[in-house]
Amino acid sequence: MITIVKESATPAQLEHFVSWTQDRGFRTNVSQGENETIVGIIGDTSRIDPLLLEPMGIVEEVRCVSDPFKKANRTFHPEDTAIDCGHGVRIGGGNFHVIADPRCVEGESIHRIAEVAKAARATLLRGSPYRSSTNPYSYQGMGAAGLGLLARVGHDVGMPIMDEVMDTRDVGLFVDKGIDVMQIGTRNAQDFALLREVGRTRVPVLPKRGRSETIDELLMVTEHVMSEGNSRVMLCERGIRTFEARTRYTFDVNAIPTLHRLSHLPVIADLNHAAGSRRYAAPVAPAACAAGADGLMVEVHDNPNEARSGGATALTPEGFATTMRRVSLVRDAVTTRLEA
Amino acid sequence: MITIVKESATPAQLEHFVSWTQDRGFRTNVSQGENETIVGIIGDTSRIDPLLLEPMGIVEEVRCVSDPFKKANRTFHPEDTAIDCGHGVRIGGGNFHVIADPRCVEGESIHRIAEVAKAARATLLRGSPYRSSTNPYSYQGMGAAGLGLLARVGHDVGMPIMDEVMDTRDVGLFVDKGIDVMQIGTRNAQDFALLREVGRTRVPVLPKRGRSETIDELLMVTEHVMSEGNSRVMLCERGIRTFEARTRYTFDVNAIPTLHRLSHLPVIADLNHAAGSRRYAAPVAPAACAAGADGLMVEVHDNPNEARSGGATALTPEGFATTMRRVSLVRDAVTTRLEA
Amino acid sequence: MITIVKESATPAQLEHFVSWTQDRGFRTNVSQGENETIVGIIGDTSRIDPLLLEPMGIVEEVRCVSDPFKKANRTFHPEDTAIDCGHGVRIGGGNFHVIADPRCVEGESIHRIAEVAKAARATLLRGSPYRSSTNPYSYQGMGAAGLGLLARVGHDVGMPIMDEVMDTRDVGLFVDKGIDVMQIGTRNAQDFALLREVGRTRVPVLPKRGRSETIDELLMVTEHVMSEGNSRVMLCERGIRTFEARTRYTFDVNAIPTLHRLSHLPVIADLNHAAGSRRYAAPVAPAACAAGADGLMVEVHDNPNEARSGGATALTPEGFATTMRRVSLVRDAVTTRLEA
Amino acid sequence: MITIVKESATPAQLEHFVSWTQDRGFRTNVSQGENETIVGIIGDTSRIDPLLLEPMGIVEEVRCVSDPFKKANRTFHPEDTAIDCGHGVRIGGGNFHVIADPRCVEGESIHRIAEVAKAARATLLRGSPYRSSTNPYSYQGMGAAGLGLLARVGHDVGMPIMDEVMDTRDVGLFVDKGIDVMQIGTRNAQDFALLREVGRTRVPVLPKRGRSETIDELLMVTEHVMSEGNSRVMLCERGIRTFEARTRYTFDVNAIPTLHRLSHLPVIADLNHAAGSRRYAAPVAPAACAAGADGLMVEVHDNPNEARSGGATALTPEGFATTMRRVSLVRDAVTTRLEA
Repeated sequence: MITIVKESATPAQLEHFVSWTQDRGFRTNVSQGENETIVGIIGDTSRIDPLLLEPMGIVEEVRCVSDPFKKANRTFHPEDTAIDCGHGVRIGGGNFHVIADPRCVEGESIHRIAEVAKAARATLLRGSPYRSSTNPYSYQGMGAAGLGLLARVGHDVGMPIMDEVMDTRDVGLFVDKGIDVMQIGTRNAQDFALLREVGRTRVPVLPKRGRSETIDELLMVTEHVMSEGNSRVMLCERGIRTFEARTRYTFDVNAIPTLHRLSHLPVIADLNHAAGSRRYAAPVAPAACAAGADGLMVEVHDNPNEARSGGATALTPEGFATTMRRVSLVRDAVTTRLEA
Repeated sequence: MITIVKESATPAQLEHFVSWTQDRGFRTNVSQGENETIVGIIGDTSRIDPLLLEPMGIVEEVRCVSDPFKKANRTFHPEDTAIDCGHGVRIGGGNFHVIADPRCVEGESIHRIAEVAKAARATLLRGSPYRSSTNPYSYQGMGAAGLGLLARVGHDVGMPIMDEVMDTRDVGLFVDKGIDVMQIGTRNAQDFALLREVGRTRVPVLPKRGRSETIDELLMVTEHVMSEGNSRVMLCERGIRTFEARTRYTFDVNAIPTLHRLSHLPVIADLNHAAGSRRYAAPVAPAACAAGADGLMVEVHDNPNEARSGGATALTPEGFATTMRRVSLVRDAVTTRLEA
Repeated sequence: MITIVKESATPAQLEHFVSWTQDRGFRTNVSQGENETIVGIIGDTSRIDPLLLEPMGIVEEVRCVSDPFKKANRTFHPEDTAIDCGHGVRIGGGNFHVIADPRCVEGESIHRIAEVAKAARATLLRGSPYRSSTNPYSYQGMGAAGLGLLARVGHDVGMPIMDEVMDTRDVGLFVDKGIDVMQIGTRNAQDFALLREVGRTRVPVLPKRGRSETIDELLMVTEHVMSEGNSRVMLCERGIRTFEARTRYTFDVNAIPTLHRLSHLPVIADLNHAAGSRRYAAPVAPAACAAGADGLMVEVHDNPNEARSGGATALTPEGFATTMRRVSLVRDAVTTRLEA
Repeated sequence: MITIVKESATPAQLEHFVSWTQDRGFRTNVSQGENETIVGIIGDTSRIDPLLLEPMGIVEEVRCVSDPFKKANRTFHPEDTAIDCGHGVRIGGGNFHVIADPRCVEGESIHRIAEVAKAARATLLRGSPYRSSTNPYSYQGMGAAGLGLLARVGHDVGMPIMDEVMDTRDVGLFVDKGIDVMQIGTRNAQDFALLREVGRTRVPVLPKRGRSETIDELLMVTEHVMSEGNSRVMLCERGIRTFEARTRYTFDVNAIPTLHRLSHLPVIADLNHAAGSRRYAAPVAPAACAAGADGLMVEVHDNPNEARSGGATALTPEGFATTMRRVSLVRDAVTTRLEA
């Protein structure tokens, strides 16, 4: 951690600041520049809140040099981590998987779509019996009853089940019903109470990047989960808010290699929201795969125009199957070993 | 609601779409342009989910003409609403108030700061016994014990108390302890479970604008609270995330007149996060007042450099008093009647 | 074009507005909703400035339905356009090309890099004898002398040459020296004087998307060039500014299929600025290719650490060759015909 | 300047890097942390391009500690600078001025508006005979003929004249015609050729902040002008692009005190684009004044609904006069001396 000291600071003030820092167990390194004095603080500076230093009389600015996230950090854990999601599905560390997402769990149609998705080589199933809509008057989903249905379909078809948990009071129910992966949605991306609650379970967690969250903030979110004891965490890039209005979000393809460089956790690309329209899933899914994603989440519905939610982004079964074949070709292209 | 029909649509498809719409109780208006056909849908279109129409075979794009938020909308409620916060404090409708915010509730110092703030003419007190920090290892606050302390200080000093609720499981406790205003923080700005939960109480609610939330999204958030029955809602502008790095957030001063135009609810300017540094509170507080805010939230601490949280943004008691006097002069300047 | 009429408008005002519109040669369509009246204006509405209508007494809001860009619009020109850049290089319409970019033109090293790039299957060469740096004191490039050198290298190696033009006064010189493609940089993205000047030549133009420009704004930029008579225009996605700080820009991979849907012009992905670091060029280049780019621009330098400009993003010759081979495999994967 | 060295660096590499730096005349300060080694580089580091260091084998990241802008920097010039614009108008250093802006110069109406603006206490006049529109087919202004007209009106009414220059080829003409202030528009905000060209004159320059430019980038822009010899520069905040769609831009009110802290140059608030609608000029103008602006730019037109440009944002003469009176009251409120 580096602190830039104000020009107005007296030598006595500087000395006092250095002692204050050393008293807290840190080493310091003072560097007198032409226009600034810089005090480097050495040690586990994640214990210092930068916002606390700044208001100190003499500190002009504080800059962190170390990453504040520790448990997800590749520096301390160089090998890829693969996450076991049940039914033999391990994501990461060279294992690539596709999560089929029919969004709403609507009666028995979920069973039919699961079969279709599996036939096209999807290996996980996501459903959302609780719906999170910006419009309080729109359809809110089947609720708890849907959770049981979803779990049953997963069991029947033999696929791990992922679902979004949105309320601390529901976490226990998700565990009881045997949901295999708990997703934290964009709207709860910084909901620390919820993150800590799922951190107290042993169920794999997939926190989605908030729509204006930075990569560092996403990695810091994992720290809330992991510091409670649950280290089964995956990272999800799903598109960020930008000025571009032709697509609902901007899929941050750079985030895939960046997350891989910074963290040992697997990276999932959620294509559903990446562009916000089914017309872009076909070209963007192979791009995410080419950039090194460990998994894709893709919407599919057997009658998207009648889906009660998410129809705009869902592929038809035929579109899904074609996209899966294209993704498979691209996955081969990026994993082909190039001879020297 | 306006739907733009694809060029490829056949007359039969268009006719089918028009019937589908009319069957649902809407009137339609078809307009044939040079390059597009437009179908206007007339009626209470908040009942239609635009995302549902888009995937329909023939629809190119859907545009909403009416605002989706109803209960906060000035169109249906032209007069300003004032919110009664207790202790004789009514915010809005010409009544201007200042909320003093010592952030953390730390032992008895909160009592001392409340007295200071009141002497400088602040009329509400905000404290935060639960701390919401991005760093899971930093100080997390006094918790429930602090709530009681805060309520007692409010009672003793005679000021309504505002506090941030972050977990659906805590809402009942806040009501029991007699918290006068429940604030929804930026990180829970889109946490619909929490919004609905506070909507089931009769305690005034202050949802903060999310850091990349639009004004329409903030107004839609109020709909989640108000549709559950609680119409005691105020709006809070607190700065949005932009590319500007010299200030932590960009205070959206335009939002104040814009919210007043669109909604009848009072508008509070939270100066704490507006710029993220105490050095900008002094100039930005009068600016927020000049733009027409119904209230300001300003941090104050009697020893900001030792505060366990928020010290960087808190004014000293002297700085607070001076800022209050400046704000008062500006409030007079903007409410002076100009003769023709 | 759709105009939403204020509730306060009287029938007489509405009638007057409708006549005003019809007098200008447009057809109108009036639709009376519950809360709004909407007047559709039908005809070539690109002749109306929406900002002119809004202040009219009775107009609440104006929304454009047609795209304002015409010449680049696929609606009026459904087939892909391929641009002939000389030396037999045609970009677009199924032809994929790689532009090698050693950035600065520094003495004869440019010749050596051109040979290396060509050997790795690059087909165009970009250099920049004029440097555009945010720092006025940094190295500003070789200037006019470098243009001649660049043209000579292009001739010797047999590759078309692309260079960035930054001043209206230089356009004639670029034409005289035989530069094959004139690039308009991000900083001049909205420099209409310059856009019109290159529009008066017959040299292919590659306008880069501004760092916070929308896709529609980029397409509107082409209109400034094309309306002056030069229809040899390509589109360049090069990364946009977002809140993400780990990468210099966010490569908007969605933009590739979106531009292809909206326009018939070829789309080039500039990987140099896409992420702002050579470490991301290797994964992002195949992703851009997978998303359907018609060409890639990739920096290469035979001694990046000593390059006077752009070294941070340039690949070594080995890195460039490996990336080209990976891109080629991915190009095959995305152009493979999938049988039904 | 601080460089963070990669973990993989060997002691020999580190030593080589330190020598390389010292050979260039800098002092260094090496600090060995738990996870990083940091090398501080001391001296006039504006001579080093950070992008050049990063690709060096061993450097992980470079951070600038000193501000890269020098001539506009308050550190080296603590007193406010006032800029003499002619006709006795000095902006800055406690002098507050209002620039009336009728936008287009349309026949003799400009003369009438100038009189009206002057009567309401505006002290400068802005006109724009050259129009810069995103639409190539819209009205492009009177051109050179308008410049002469504008200069004549300024002379007659006794107000300095400000106009926007957009092409390096026009700078000489502006000087010849006696334009008192040359404005650099948002679209040319990073047009270094133009900035250098106006830097070679002695005419005051008002560069506008680009729509997604940071404060540091705006200050760096002044360096391009000032390094050519012209130190008569003012800073213009005019609203930045954000996700907010209800207003055209977001007026960054924080920028006013921030620019004052960082620079000695005067700060003008351009209200025309701040919100993009005349309905917000009345509340936002007093806010900009309350935040400490040295001047305001406000549009006014005697028949805004028939103006050929900018009508949506222009105040009527009555609206302008009322806003000026409100601003004057607020200016008094913020400059009133508060007794201890």
